[in-house]
This record gives sequence, structure tokens and C-alpha cells, in this order.
Amino acid sequence: MNVAVDATVTTGPIAGSSKFYSPTGVPFRRVHLSTGEHFDLYDTSGPYTDANAVIDLQKGLPPRAGIVRDSGTQLQRARNCEITAEMAFIAEREGVPAELVRSEVARGRAVIPANHNHPESEPMIIGKAFGVKVNANIGNSAVTSSIAEEVDKMVWATRWGADTIMDLSTGKDIHLTREWILRNSPVPVGTVPMYQALEKVGGDPTKMTWESYRDTVIEQCEQGVDYMTVHAGVKLAYIPLTVRRVTGIVSRGGSIMAAWMLAHHRESFLYENFEELCEILARYDVTFSLGDGLRPGSIADANDEAQFAELRTLGELTTIAKSHGVQVMIEGPGHVPMHKIVENVRLEEELCEEAPFYTLGPLATDIAPAYDHITSAIGAAIIAQAGTAMLCYVTPKEHLGLPDRKDVKDGVIAYRIAAHAADLAKGHPRAQQRDDALSLARFEFRWHDQFALSLDPDTAREYHDETLPAEPAKTAHFCSMCGPKFCSMRITQDIRDAMAEKSQEFAEHGNRVYLPLTS
Amino acid sequence: MNVAVDATVTTGPIAGSSKFYSPTGVPFRRVHLSTGEHFDLYDTSGPYTDANAVIDLQKGLPPRAGIVRDSGTQLQRARNCEITAEMAFIAEREGVPAELVRSEVARGRAVIPANHNHPESEPMIIGKAFGVKVNANIGNSAVTSSIAEEVDKMVWATRWGADTIMDLSTGKDIHLTREWILRNSPVPVGTVPMYQALEKVGGDPTKMTWESYRDTVIEQCEQGVDYMTVHAGVKLAYIPLTVRRVTGIVSRGGSIMAAWMLAHHRESFLYENFEELCEILARYDVTFSLGDGLRPGSIADANDEAQFAELRTLGELTTIAKSHGVQVMIEGPGHVPMHKIVENVRLEEELCEEAPFYTLGPLATDIAPAYDHITSAIGAAIIAQAGTAMLCYVTPKEHLGLPDRKDVKDGVIAYRIAAHAADLAKGHPRAQQRDDALSLARFEFRWHDQFALSLDPDTAREYHDETLPAEPAKTAHFCSMCGPKFCSMRITQDIRDAMAEKSQEFAEHGNRVYLPLTS
Repeated sequence: MNVAVDATVTTGPIAGSSKFYSPTGVPFRRVHLSTGEHFDLYDTSGPYTDANAVIDLQKGLPPRAGIVRDSGTQLQRARNCEITAEMAFIAEREGVPAELVRSEVARGRAVIPANHNHPESEPMIIGKAFGVKVNANIGNSAVTSSIAEEVDKMVWATRWGADTIMDLSTGKDIHLTREWILRNSPVPVGTVPMYQALEKVGGDPTKMTWESYRDTVIEQCEQGVDYMTVHAGVKLAYIPLTVRRVTGIVSRGGSIMAAWMLAHHRESFLYENFEELCEILARYDVTFSLGDGLRPGSIADANDEAQFAELRTLGELTTIAKSHGVQVMIEGPGHVPMHKIVENVRLEEELCEEAPFYTLGPLATDIAPAYDHITSAIGAAIIAQAGTAMLCYVTPKEHLGLPDRKDVKDGVIAYRIAAHAADLAKGHPRAQQRDDALSLARFEFRWHDQFALSLDPDTAREYHDETLPAEPAKTAHFCSMCGPKFCSMRITQDIRDAMAEKSQEFAEHGNRVYLPLTS
Repeated sequence: MNVAVDATVTTGPIAGSSKFYSPTGVPFRRVHLSTGEHFDLYDTSGPYTDANAVIDLQKGLPPRAGIVRDSGTQLQRARNCEITAEMAFIAEREGVPAELVRSEVARGRAVIPANHNHPESEPMIIGKAFGVKVNANIGNSAVTSSIAEEVDKMVWATRWGADTIMDLSTGKDIHLTREWILRNSPVPVGTVPMYQALEKVGGDPTKMTWESYRDTVIEQCEQGVDYMTVHAGVKLAYIPLTVRRVTGIVSRGGSIMAAWMLAHHRESFLYENFEELCEILARYDVTFSLGDGLRPGSIADANDEAQFAELRTLGELTTIAKSHGVQVMIEGPGHVPMHKIVENVRLEEELCEEAPFYTLGPLATDIAPAYDHITSAIGAAIIAQAGTAMLCYVTPKEHLGLPDRKDVKDGVIAYRIAAHAADLAKGHPRAQQRDDALSLARFEFRWHDQFALSLDPDTAREYHDETLPAEPAKTAHFCSMCGPKFCSMRITQDIRDAMAEKSQEFAEHGNRVYLPLTS
């Protein structure tokens, strides 16, 4: 990658698990249970959790085995009734028929973000018929952070379950930071090209031009970016709709475009040149993530006229993009009180041909800065249950500062919880199996299995060990919460033993009813 | 309190606020804004956050000014069309008409847990027509913790917003621990008398008797416990319904009663002596919290036959308790996937005369031990939106160990978020005002105001200061997340300035349309 960076990342298996590859090379996190059984989990972490992998960050990850640099887009090929290598991989990964993958992509209800120039990435799908996905934003700002830190955050985020990464760098070395992330990322990488375009003109929105923006997009397509946020739905006419808002325009891309339009008194160059953008993205199979530049930035502004005016325009743009064979997803809010969440999904599906919805939270209240991973996990779970396909995480630092490594993990875990809660509520076939396996381990006091099946085995074990660190406590029939005498699960097991005994007596004494079953 | 304990607690105002008492003595947390305005918030923290209060833990809090040790229960007096001193206090605290308080109590849709013998407590109400409340469980177990720690946790929990406290001690010094908590608690205190009754017989459930249980209840009523969890709905006939469950009986009280019934082959002594219990509780105006001893302990067991059989019995008991003039609330699950949550509220209201529902979470998934404050805040927000009146918090240590001070705060904050999100969704008149005030402070870069209006000003400020500690950054028009050039809120303010300028030009040039408002 030309420039050496002194980067280190976390490697090695997650506690209690090992990397397992199916015969066709699809990765799973295999949990080894003390019963001798194993349990395979969807695994986003790439070779970094493979004990046998040799990681060389300077060289980047090897291209995926047998990858063909395809021509055409997954959408075009799905329409042609082709099941691509990526679709077959995804079908096995999700545990669904390959034909379902193809048909959802063909219909535009799912996208496979897979730039021909990002062969390091393991194929994944974003669509409501599949497991709910989680994106983690990383990237530096002018105030803080280095390339090495961002590569570390990328690996760290995928370790804990990020399905995609967005590199939102706005500080120095934008191109090189992205190069390091792309070459080492086992998951699709998204960007907002506007940020680099703005840096190129010294940070003055009014100086941007379509030509330099377009060249930035091409530069990023060439590098291998898998999906791009484009705020082409923010039109000049919508700016006045934001004037009486409590928090105005809170999308960075949206505010930049608004500033440009107002300065030039012209319609957005993104909107006016959208077809040319489509032609560029189609060449690389880069997926559009149509940005919601006018998303609400507070509870007060949720579901307002500005937001929904832009959503209608995103619907128009979806039709155009798909006519060029480009895959599309639609970005959504932001900040929305619970009772207004479902309406967002319903409208998005109606206006945007059911293109996958990709939402930021939403935060269900604004009163908890420093805890917005929680305020937004509530909204995220509800919006995902209603049909959102991918959730963009929010970290505890949201609104306050740039997330560090700990924040990234906290954000990813909170969002894996929201995504999984939604998978359960949607009846995803594999979701409840994991809950049931963990619950049974809990009931049977298989503490190691309980930790290994959890989202974060390290922290679960650490919390348990704070009060009962000794190894025998890992098989003890209680924990420090209730102590031995008050452990309901132990008592329940005693009850079951007693009932089994009674049941046997019952059989031995001629099957008379042994419990008065009246109320 | 006879025995001196070396206890210390956190005192002093929450950052950016001071204690304010209305002319009638109702407490508020008054936030002082940099605009010169102030904003009053509901305040659960008692005298501990009053800079002028003298705290003496050995003596306990003074009785509330002007309190009359009432006779009768709030329910009986509400039915007699009396607006009690407690109702008037609550009406002002909630910002609603006193008649609403009275009528909701009379109808049994709200309870005011206020034992005549707990004069230190500030009156509060639990009911769906009012703000959603949060309970924090504290208490030692046989394995860990001391009286001093539990008193500290009580004060700490109410500082961050716990509306009631349950002392679930099961270890040594149960009576004395409770005495220390009660005499120092500004909020109602709940207990599960079964735990002490079991300790009295050496921890063997089969040795319990109705007489010793009853004496324990009287002992706790005399001390001033405001509400008691009684698992009188677990009947002998329901035990077989739990046998095929993944996690059996997970309520401690439920499992203890099941063990007793099975050992004696008799119906529950709680169920059989329920009328006598009612007579005792009526004398002190202690509120029933009818326990859900058969609540599900895993996603797999949610909404099953055992759970709903018990709920029907709780409905019968509600009618009996109310016929004795005793206030009643109903406890609810536990572990429930999102799509099965609302059904719980609907059934509870139907079967239990709309008595206030008081739920533990529920956890929306089981796969995240160490993060169950988040898994359950999702379920809690949804169930509260559907009508649950009080949420029992869950801390990060749930299922793993006894919560410490940090866990208590994390649990309370997560649940204040869930409760507030529900208040917003239910249209509670005061809820959105706080969101709007904070959002506006955010938009106007009034960082100190943003912190002061938040649930946890200390942590919000700490996170902000990690990257930008200097005082000038507290008025800077950006933070480290995006840096100055990419701050959407700053750009929006520029846009508004520009539009205001244009608007003036427009007026000066004869009111020609200055923006092409076509799409």
C-alpha cells in the first residue's frame, strides 16, 4: 500500500469458539459446547479470528478464493436469472435457498454490496428477508485519530459483529486511510464521497463542482468502495422546509449541499447529474445508499414535511438507478419517537419500491447524551422489526465526540442486540435457536457454554468472575446474584426431580392422579 | 437505628441543577440554563441533592413536613371522594389535576405506595395515566455485600432517577438492612417477605409455615415497607405446566412456593390465606405487588400456559384485595420477544381490572449476558408504551452476579431512557418539553445546557471533554466528532443567516420569488 503504517489489530478466536469454514469456504463462528455438541453462528470477523490465518496488514487480506472479477451488477445478473458465486455464498451463510437470494436481489428488495475492486470482502446481503445487518461508522475527523487507529477499529468492529463498515474520515490522509481499511476489510466498505470532495476544495462547500465530485467518486470506485452515500435527494426547494425546525439540517452531506445550492442559487449538482453517477456506479457494481440529508435531528423534527419531501425524491432516484442496473438502498432517520417509527418504514417501502431501508438508530429520545447507543438501540429494534434491513450503529459518544475503540464495541454490541431482537420478532429461523441454546445452558449451569454463546463472552465471564472467580464456580449451581439457597433454577431442578419421582410412584401405584389439578 | 453503621452516600446537587421546592413543598430538580431561563424536572432524589440539607444517616431522614399518619388506605379514601395530602402532592409533582389522581386511584388504575410507617418517603404514584416509573432492586445475597453498601446503592439509585427501591436482601442482617434503607429512603420501598421468611427457617422451603410468613409480613409492615411482592398466584395445579419449559420457574418466590407445595402436597398457603393478608396490609396501607412466580425465564417460555394461568389467578386476587380496600399492582415478565410483548399488557388489563402493571424488563433476547440492561430496555420501552406503569430495572450484572454501584447507575439510566421514550410515545405533556429544550441547546451549541438537561450530566461532559477539555470548547460551534468544517449544525446556522439575508433582499426588491420552488 506504498506507505507503511505501524498498525496492530486484535486477532485470534472469540473465547469458546473457533473459525469453521464450510466445504465451499463459507465462514462460521463455531461454538464448542461442553456437551460435546457445537453451534455455528454467522461470522462477520473474517480471517482475524482464524487461529491459522497469517495476518499481514501491510499486504492486506488475500482476495477471496476463486473470486472472478465479474462484469455487470448483481442486480443485472439476478434479473437474468443467474445465481452468482456471491449469491450462492450468501445463501449458505444465511441458511436460505439461493433462489430466494436471487429473487430478492432481482426485485430490488435486497442488495449485495460488492465492488469488483474489493475482492477481500466476504459476500453478504442486505434485505428484509434476511438477517438484520449492522453497520459501524469509523473514520477520523480534523481534530483526532490516525490511520492505525481506524484500521484497528475496523477489525475490532467486525470482530464483534459489524456487517459493514463506513469510513467517514474527514481529516487528513482520507485516501490513504481508506486504502488501508479496504485492503484489510473482510466486510463491505461504504463512504460518503462528499467528504473527500469537500476536503479537495479546502472545506468550503460553495467551491465544490460536479466535476471534482465525479472524479472523487471514480477514485473511490477504483479503490473498491462497495457502497456510497449520495445526498441527491436534497433539492433546493426543500431547504425552506427546514427553517422552522428545532435542529435544522443535521446530515453533514445534506447541510453541505444546502450551503452549495443556496450560494449558487442552483439545483443540486447531485440531483442534476444523477444519471451520469448511475453509469459510473454500474461499471463497478457499487451500490447507492441514497442519503437522507434532511433526516430529523431531534424528536421535535421527526416525520416532518422536509423529511418526507426528500423521501419522495429518493423514490424517483431509486427508479432511475435501477433502470441503470445499479443496486439501491435508502437511508433513514435519525431521531424519531417510538410512535412515529413504523410510519417511516411504511412510507419508505411505498415510495422507494421496497429498496432495503438502512437507518441510523433512530434515537427514541434526545435526553440521554452519553447513552445514545441505548436510546437508539430501542428505536433500531423497533424499526428493524418493521422491516429495516440494516441498522447504522450509534455509539455512546454520539453528539459528544469521536468514538474510540471501547465506544465502537459498545455500539456494535448494542446494535447486534437490536438486530437480533428484530430477527426473533420476525421469526428468522436461526435466531431463536441461539436464544434457546443459551437459555438451556443457563438453566443447566453450564457457565462456559453460556459465555461462549453470548455476544460478548469476555465481558460476560468477567462480570461473573468479579464475585466468583474460582473455576469450581463455573459449574456451581448458583451465582452471586442470589446465592445458593435462593437460586430459582436450582430449586426448579429439584422440583423436576421430585416430580419425576412422583411420576414413577404414580405409575407404580396404578396411575392414580398424584396432584390435585383443580384450581 | 440501634446499630451504628459506617455508611457514606453521595450528596449535593446534580451538575447544572439545584433543588427547588414549590411553595407547598413539592421537590423539583431545577436546571439553570445559560439563557437565564430555568427548567424544572421531576426529582426522585430526596434531600440528598439539596445543598442545604443536613444528612445524618444514623438518624435517618426527617418525616415529611406536615405528614399525618393517616388511617385507611389511599384507595378507600379516593373512593370516598377525598383528595388526600398525598394526592395533592402528586398532582403538583406530575403536573396534572388532583381529581385525575383521585379518580385513577379510586378506579384501581393507579396506586400510591405509602405505608403509614414510612413518613420519610415523598408521595408518588404508579399508573398508566402518569409518567412511567422505574424501580431499582438492591439488597445483599449470602455471597456478598454489606448494609453500608446497600444504603449507598439506594441513595445512588434515587439520585439517577429510581422512583422506588426494592430491598431484595437474602443474606445476613435482613431486618437491619431494611431498617437502614427505610429510614433513609425518600422513595417507597418494596420487599419480597418470602425471602426473610425463608431465612427464618434456615433456607429450607419445605419448613416454611403460614404463621411465620404472616409474622414476617407484620414485622415488615410495622417497619414501613410500602409495597410487598406476594406470589399468591402460583398454585399447585400450575407446577406441571412448567415441566416442559426450557428454564422452568425463574422467580425465586415462585420456585420456593412450588417446592413447598410439592413437598407438602398442599395448595399454596399464600393463596389459601390471602384474605387475612389483605386485612394486614389494609391496616398499614401497604400495596400488593402480586408477583408473577411463573414468569418466563427465557424467550422460549414467553407467553405460555403457565404464565397466563397464573395471571388469571392474579386477576381473582386483585378483586379480593380491592374488596378489602388494599391497593394492587401486578408484576409481569421477564423475557419476551418483541412481537409477544403487547399481548402481555392487553391480557393483564383484561384479567386484572387494569391494575397498574409492573414489569421486569422484559428482555427482548437472551443472547447478551453482561448487556441485559440494553436487551431489557428495548422490551421495557415497548411494554411501557403499551401501558405498563412501572418498570423494574435490569442491570448489566443480571444473570451473572450482584450489581455494584456502577451497575445500579447503568441500570437506572437505561430504564429512565425506556420510561421517557414511552412517555414521549404516549404524549405525556411534559416529556417532549425536555427533549426540545435539550435539542435546542444542542443546536445552539450551549454545551453546558445540553449536559445539564441530560439524564447524566457528569458522563455527557466527561465524554465531550475526553477530546476537547478546554473551557472555550464549551461554547465552540463544533465537537470532535465532525470537527469544525463538517459540523452540520454550524452550516445550518450559516444557511439560516443566508436565507434571512435573502429574505430581506427579497422584500427590498419588490417581493419577487427568490428561490425556484418547483421540484
